[in-house]
This record gives sequence, C-alpha cells and structure tokens, in this order.
Amino acid sequence: MTEQAAVAPTGAPAVYGVVGFKNLALAILPIHADGSVILVGQHRFPLADYSWEIPEGGGPQGEEPLDGAKRELAEEAGLAAGQWREILRMQLSNSVTDELAIGYLATDLTPVQAVHHVDDTEDIARARVPFREALEAATRGDILDALTVAMLLRAYHMAREGHLPDALARAMLL
Amino acid sequence: MTEQAAVAPTGAPAVYGVVGFKNLALAILPIHADGSVILVGQHRFPLADYSWEIPEGGGPQGEEPLDGAKRELAEEAGLAAGQWREILRMQLSNSVTDELAIGYLATDLTPVQAVHHVDDTEDIARARVPFREALEAATRGDILDALTVAMLLRAYHMAREGHLPDALARAMLL
Repeated sequence: MTEQAAVAPTGAPAVYGVVGFKNLALAILPIHADGSVILVGQHRFPLADYSWEIPEGGGPQGEEPLDGAKRELAEEAGLAAGQWREILRMQLSNSVTDELAIGYLATDLTPVQAVHHVDDTEDIARARVPFREALEAATRGDILDALTVAMLLRAYHMAREGHLPDALARAMLL
Repeated sequence: MTEQAAVAPTGAPAVYGVVGFKNLALAILPIHADGSVILVGQHRFPLADYSWEIPEGGGPQGEEPLDGAKRELAEEAGLAAGQWREILRMQLSNSVTDELAIGYLATDLTPVQAVHHVDDTEDIARARVPFREALEAATRGDILDALTVAMLLRAYHMAREGHLPDALARAMLL
C-alpha cells in the first residue's frame, strides 16, 4: 500500500496505510431504490462452480480505492452510482494472507455503456434480485463468497438500525 | 475433504463434500445468556498487531467439523457449549485459495479445565464483552477479521428475525 492518508468508517486514520496490506480487495453492493441488488455470476477457477456474488475486484497499488470500486461497478455490473458509502472493512484469511477488503454501498444507480475487456478467465452474468432473496441465499449457504455474505448482512444491519434512508430500508426489508 | 455426509443450514446436502475444499476453517461465536460474547485476542503473524476475534481454527481432514469446533472453543475460550448451531458458511478469498469456513453459534456455556498447548506462535487473551459492543467494533472497522465480522452480523440478523430464543435476542440487542 501507499502511505496515503486514508479514513476509516470511524473517521480515524485507516489501519491499512499503517500496517501495509499488500493486497486490497474491493467489494461493491449496488442497491436500486426498489430494494433490489445486483449480483454477478462469475466462474472462479479454484472452485469449479458458478458463484453469484456482488461486484468485486482487486485494488492496484497507488489507485484510490474508491476509483477502483467505481471501475469494478462499471465493468462487472454496467452501472455508475450517484452515491458511494464505505460500509465495511474486513481482513480475509488473516493467518495466511495479508489482504484488506473495503466494501462500499453504491446507490442512485444508472446504466453506463458496457465496458468490454478481453479476459478469457472471466465470464460474467448479471442478475437483479430482491435484497431479501439475496440475503436468504447468503444465510442458507447458497451464496458462499465471504465478501458478499458479509456485505449483505451489513446492509441488513444498517437498514434495521436506521442507518439507511427510510424509503430504501423499507424497500429492502419488504 | 472426506466424502462423509454433511448437512447444510437448509437441511440439503452440504456443498463442501462435493467440491472438495482442501481447507476447512472453523469459527465459533460463543454467546452467554446475558448477551455477552467471548472474544480472543490473538497475535497473527502476517499482521503485526493484536486482533480481537471469535475463537477460530482449522479443521483437519477426516475430523467432523463440529468436533473441531468443540476443541477450538475449549482451547481458545476455555468453554464448553450445551447448544451448538451451524449458522453460516462462507468461502474465503475464493480467487486465490480454496477454503470453506463453517460458523457455529455456541450457547449454554460452561467453563472447562484449561487446555494448554506448547505453541510459541499463539498467545491468546480473552475478553467478555456485550454483543452490541462487539458488533459496533466490527462495523466501524476496529475488528477486521472476516469471520468475526460476518458471524457477529449473522447473529444480529438472527436476533432481529426471530431466529434465536426471545430472551437471548433481547439480551443481545439491549
């Protein structure tokens, strides 16, 4: 990581600039005003199955994490967001790797022109599903991706605790 | 993984016996009747800091995951649980590794005789904190461990959705 100043959800200086995470994972939960979320189906090679998850990607060194998140949302979901909010930080597999994940809530969504990359390893499908449906898939083990599971649970927590706009929370919790 | 029969939270056959995860991570959220949770402070070498997390450990091949969870709870938290419930499955860092995590809720807790291991790499401290306090630490980025963050959010979800005994849910959400 670069030594750039960064701010944690608390407003305190972020830990990742200090301890020097080598890898940064970005996760974006896109939620439409009607409470539906966008999932992408991505073939992951270490597991020979098709897993639905929220848009995710790696954050290259020297790139502002939010810029990377915007790029991933455009590339994987074909969307731009009018509102961005960092809602979660997690450290993945901390006994083996050194990776920090930053999760963003993306709302006020609009389509962007498709971005095409020649990348044989990725074959992405998209689905728009009610928040409750995605959350239930995550809690019953049908969605396994750790960032997706945690981000859906975090969004539920925010909706229940009054940390999201009322109309959005109501649409999500229907 | 062995090919033993296993059951997912849905009651459907578990996926990990099929796809053959090489590594199994076990995570245990111990919650007392008063709504407090047990966190362990463990020095993790890849990150040069002291991180609070729920009891966790690896599940050796051929061992029943629940047996491993019981062992970890005894070793790390000095506790035995009268009630065990699988509440979460997640796949960690799926673009690089092949690891399934199984999370258990452990309640009806009683102390067990301390189990001592000669292991220079682990130096474990313990803390008993209100559920809300742990949850807030996780959502503001003071607890970063992915399994801990996800398990606390999952327990919140269960408490809010009526999936836990009323008295326990009330104590947790105070």
